[in-house]
Amino acid sequence: MAEDSAKQHLLSCLEVPQQQPQKLGAAKKRRIRRCKSAPSAEVYCGQNKDCGWIAGSHRTFKSFWPSFQPVAFFFAIYLVVSTTCFYLVRHQLDGKKTNGVLDALYFCIVTMTTVGYGDLVPHSVAAKLLACAFVFTGMAIVALFLGKAADYLLEKQEVLLVKALHIRQKAGKMQMLKEIETNKVKYKFFMTSASLLFLVVLGIFVLLKVERLNLIDAFYCVCATITTLGYGDKSFSTIGGRIFAVFWILTSTIFVAQFFLYLAEMNTEFRQQSLIKWVLTRRMTFVDLEAADLDDDGVLSAAEFVIYKLKEMGKISQEDVAIVMEEFETLDVDQSGTISNSDLVLAQHDV
Amino acid sequence: MAEDSAKQHLLSCLEVPQQQPQKLGAAKKRRIRRCKSAPSAEVYCGQNKDCGWIAGSHRTFKSFWPSFQPVAFFFAIYLVVSTTCFYLVRHQLDGKKTNGVLDALYFCIVTMTTVGYGDLVPHSVAAKLLACAFVFTGMAIVALFLGKAADYLLEKQEVLLVKALHIRQKAGKMQMLKEIETNKVKYKFFMTSASLLFLVVLGIFVLLKVERLNLIDAFYCVCATITTLGYGDKSFSTIGGRIFAVFWILTSTIFVAQFFLYLAEMNTEFRQQSLIKWVLTRRMTFVDLEAADLDDDGVLSAAEFVIYKLKEMGKISQEDVAIVMEEFETLDVDQSGTISNSDLVLAQHDV
Repeated sequence: MAEDSAKQHLLSCLEVPQQQPQKLGAAKKRRIRRCKSAPSAEVYCGQNKDCGWIAGSHRTFKSFWPSFQPVAFFFAIYLVVSTTCFYLVRHQLDGKKTNGVLDALYFCIVTMTTVGYGDLVPHSVAAKLLACAFVFTGMAIVALFLGKAADYLLEKQEVLLVKALHIRQKAGKMQMLKEIETNKVKYKFFMTSASLLFLVVLGIFVLLKVERLNLIDAFYCVCATITTLGYGDKSFSTIGGRIFAVFWILTSTIFVAQFFLYLAEMNTEFRQQSLIKWVLTRRMTFVDLEAADLDDDGVLSAAEFVIYKLKEMGKISQEDVAIVMEEFETLDVDQSGTISNSDLVLAQHDV
Repeated sequence: MAEDSAKQHLLSCLEVPQQQPQKLGAAKKRRIRRCKSAPSAEVYCGQNKDCGWIAGSHRTFKSFWPSFQPVAFFFAIYLVVSTTCFYLVRHQLDGKKTNGVLDALYFCIVTMTTVGYGDLVPHSVAAKLLACAFVFTGMAIVALFLGKAADYLLEKQEVLLVKALHIRQKAGKMQMLKEIETNKVKYKFFMTSASLLFLVVLGIFVLLKVERLNLIDAFYCVCATITTLGYGDKSFSTIGGRIFAVFWILTSTIFVAQFFLYLAEMNTEFRQQSLIKWVLTRRMTFVDLEAADLDDDGVLSAAEFVIYKLKEMGKISQEDVAIVMEEFETLDVDQSGTISNSDLVLAQHDV
């Protein structure tokens, strides 16, 4: 979802004449594209007092997507609160200790990411209940907010990456956007994999140098950590190691989660692509034509065809169409089966 | 996705005359509904040899959704392989041991769900690498397959639940389906919460009785397990406890994951509902009318209105429409802007 917001923004910046080769019905295609970019709306803006709605539309639309700053703010508050709590009960934690505040923060990160090494464990009732409370809230924050934030950042990186790749080829901006759109999940998947590889190597390196583990143990500890397995026989026990762990555990566990998420998305997308291809290439029968003919005039208009095919692809449901149709019938005051300017005047004057 | 499959099936079984009160334009509404259930297609089936496509459409559509049996089969194979591997290296695992096979299975479940208590830890190179391999594959299976299977089962339960609730009220079946559709995620969320509560109580009970923990420790161990935290200071160490744990850990960790998933879905749905409401109630301007008018005839047909509003709601994108429009232009042989029977004959005869 955050993706669309970034794309929307980019699209509005890059509104340029379309350079794609156009086949039959080029005029019609361009007319349809106008629905999204709606330059005609801007032309009207000077004279039309209703125009505030259109600008408002963009504003309202944007506010529906999560933005990055409140997430970071919320997360910072959570960290401060939980670290303070665990600092206060630090004498009720068993295990290898280094610095009071660092241990509290480290325990908090190990708990919220559900790694749970067990190198520090609560032994009092209060500390145990605190851990229970913070693991649930921590999970929710990681799952609901941080994943989305990571997705949003990757989306931004992706645009930069594709831009950089295309500087030499001087491809049209619209073409570039199209390429991002088509390969969105693939790009994000490869970027996540690359970042993950870097994080794994970094983790092994630190475990070798700072924690003095051997290679197999370092690899084993990295795997056990990024998957949130955390057996706890190997973990970070030095001050330097724990400072590193605080950042590294959070980043790498989120990246592993995103890795699986994009893998699942690529799988879904692949299935969907096959479905779309099948829907588009299958023979249209007279029966289809009759079923798709919403206004029963014996022929299919472009819009009727689009709705029928999108329904077949599973992109929209009958409920979606039914909800909008109710609104259509309210606006179609003269019951002509179409909405004209006069319908609009009549329908919206009463309200 | 699995949801739609179940619903689709139910819909096809329950196709009854619609009993909802119909306002203006009732005939039109009914005509549109026909697109999905398409009874007219069945009428034509006797005479039309192209009808195989329609039946085929349903078949192909179904095969796109994951079904339950292959997932269960795949999972069983995974369990057998991983348990065998860990059984072979059982002497290279440190910790509290009970029965060889049971410990291998228990270690395997604790690893694949990423609970990772650490009450059994690999100490040889081979065992460590095996654990690394199985945690990644196990995570993928839990995340990609078991979650979907759980979702599918909940969907089925949901239909039964709503049926049971409505037996007394004797509401129309269409109305029932509509209620399921509207409150889908809510129902699943509440069912997941109820199941989770049951699993938590069951877990505490077994830990009290079989593992002889006190109440606080039992609660703490349950929380640490279902969130996959698994510090490992409290875990299952008896034969009875481990037999129970094998089933209970797998079920409860999946339910917790589904719980967070539905929570996120409810949040998304709530945002989307507000957006839909806003899109439907906002004033339609002349500018909108012009932008939505695909065929440039100065008035909006029902289908044009539906596409414009669905795009505004973010349900479909410009790319979706553009892809289908290309197909439309191929089929519109006489370039009249509509597809008629003769267009179909001409377009599909060449192929």
